[in-house]
Amino acid sequence: MSGRACQVLEACDIVVGYKTYLELIKDVIKDKQTLATGMTREVDRVQAAIDAALGGHCCALVSGGDAGIYAMAGLVLEMLALKKIACNTGEQGGLWVEVVPGIPALAAGAALLGAPLTHDFAAVSLSDLLTPWEIIEKRLDAAAFADFVITIYNPKSKKRDWQLNRAMEIILKHRAGTTPVGIVTGAMRDNQKIVLCALKDLDKAEVGMQSIVIVGNSSTFIYNELMITPRGYSKKYEI
Amino acid sequence: MSGRACQVLEACDIVVGYKTYLELIKDVIKDKQTLATGMTREVDRVQAAIDAALGGHCCALVSGGDAGIYAMAGLVLEMLALKKIACNTGEQGGLWVEVVPGIPALAAGAALLGAPLTHDFAAVSLSDLLTPWEIIEKRLDAAAFADFVITIYNPKSKKRDWQLNRAMEIILKHRAGTTPVGIVTGAMRDNQKIVLCALKDLDKAEVGMQSIVIVGNSSTFIYNELMITPRGYSKKYEI
Repeated sequence: MSGRACQVLEACDIVVGYKTYLELIKDVIKDKQTLATGMTREVDRVQAAIDAALGGHCCALVSGGDAGIYAMAGLVLEMLALKKIACNTGEQGGLWVEVVPGIPALAAGAALLGAPLTHDFAAVSLSDLLTPWEIIEKRLDAAAFADFVITIYNPKSKKRDWQLNRAMEIILKHRAGTTPVGIVTGAMRDNQKIVLCALKDLDKAEVGMQSIVIVGNSSTFIYNELMITPRGYSKKYEI
Repeated sequence: MSGRACQVLEACDIVVGYKTYLELIKDVIKDKQTLATGMTREVDRVQAAIDAALGGHCCALVSGGDAGIYAMAGLVLEMLALKKIACNTGEQGGLWVEVVPGIPALAAGAALLGAPLTHDFAAVSLSDLLTPWEIIEKRLDAAAFADFVITIYNPKSKKRDWQLNRAMEIILKHRAGTTPVGIVTGAMRDNQKIVLCALKDLDKAEVGMQSIVIVGNSSTFIYNELMITPRGYSKKYEI
């Protein structure tokens, strides 16, 4: 957590969030008022935060990773826009919103794997709850074609069990079966698990709700169990 | 900066880095021994850090943003691999390397702009010092075609003055001229500057070495000077 995130949690009087995340920061928020909601209740959670803020409270809405990457900052601003609540303008009846950046899951996962994101990369979520699957396929295909390192968010859940295998097939059209893949589950948490495999074996790897999957580009290699995407220095300089 | 980054800087006895970055953290590293090198001396900097570590020192190498995203973690591991220095294996004569994740420029920039990265995105560096320009063009084209939000690293420098205009042309082949673009310069620093423009006007915007440029996807919109990429909740839920 950043210094700014700690300051903000210190300053607010209500903390809203998914219950698992509130549990993770219970030592930081101590006895502050909390409003916890379950998974997939994102709209309710944001509404609760907006209501608290409109009621004059200083309210923090907590996300895992970075609040702006596939997370709640977007829904907060989208709902304020839909409801035409003025935001950061100083108008009467409006709200002030600060988005506090954090360490995204892709950065935490990459750090645990070594340095797979040293070159151009794409982030794709496999969740087709809010995005048509054809768009997700199109993005996977384009990212694989152009040799992006690919970070896969929401690779699998109990209900969404075939999407990752299909993603593997699409990427394999453009990339070698031996391409290194890193899977980080529960990054920086007690259940943290790091697994490396070849792209062709991704369908056999253990992947879950808390996993992020990073597929290397055509230059990515493994050294001492670390995943490394070179930037290109060794082509230009004597190392 | 994260709590872990502070801990590591506290624990080490030598800090290596680009001089501007060491200046930014001078209050944290106080009177520790530092080894500063200038820009484009990345290989020297990493060599200095490796030499210090092989000499028995606990050495921190500092990057701006996140050390693993277009930054020094990759070069450290690449040079250790090239030199066949064992890494994190516990072998005699080997080193222990920890990559400490941070807040990447794309997350800091996105937070200051609002929430442009709530959906799939690609990161592309326009620096053709180490990457052939044709590959960069191919990636920009693929990312624009597949409607990724595009975060552009290293958009411009004194010497590289035409690449951003060319990138604009490529993206305009697939995306409307009115697509919102956010430009954040010196994110979280004293010279911080935030500018919004339309994609078709990107060639007229002030962009420099310390800028990150975020080009919205086909759904990104502006509300109260905030850049928002919706995730898709309003299509599925009553908001």
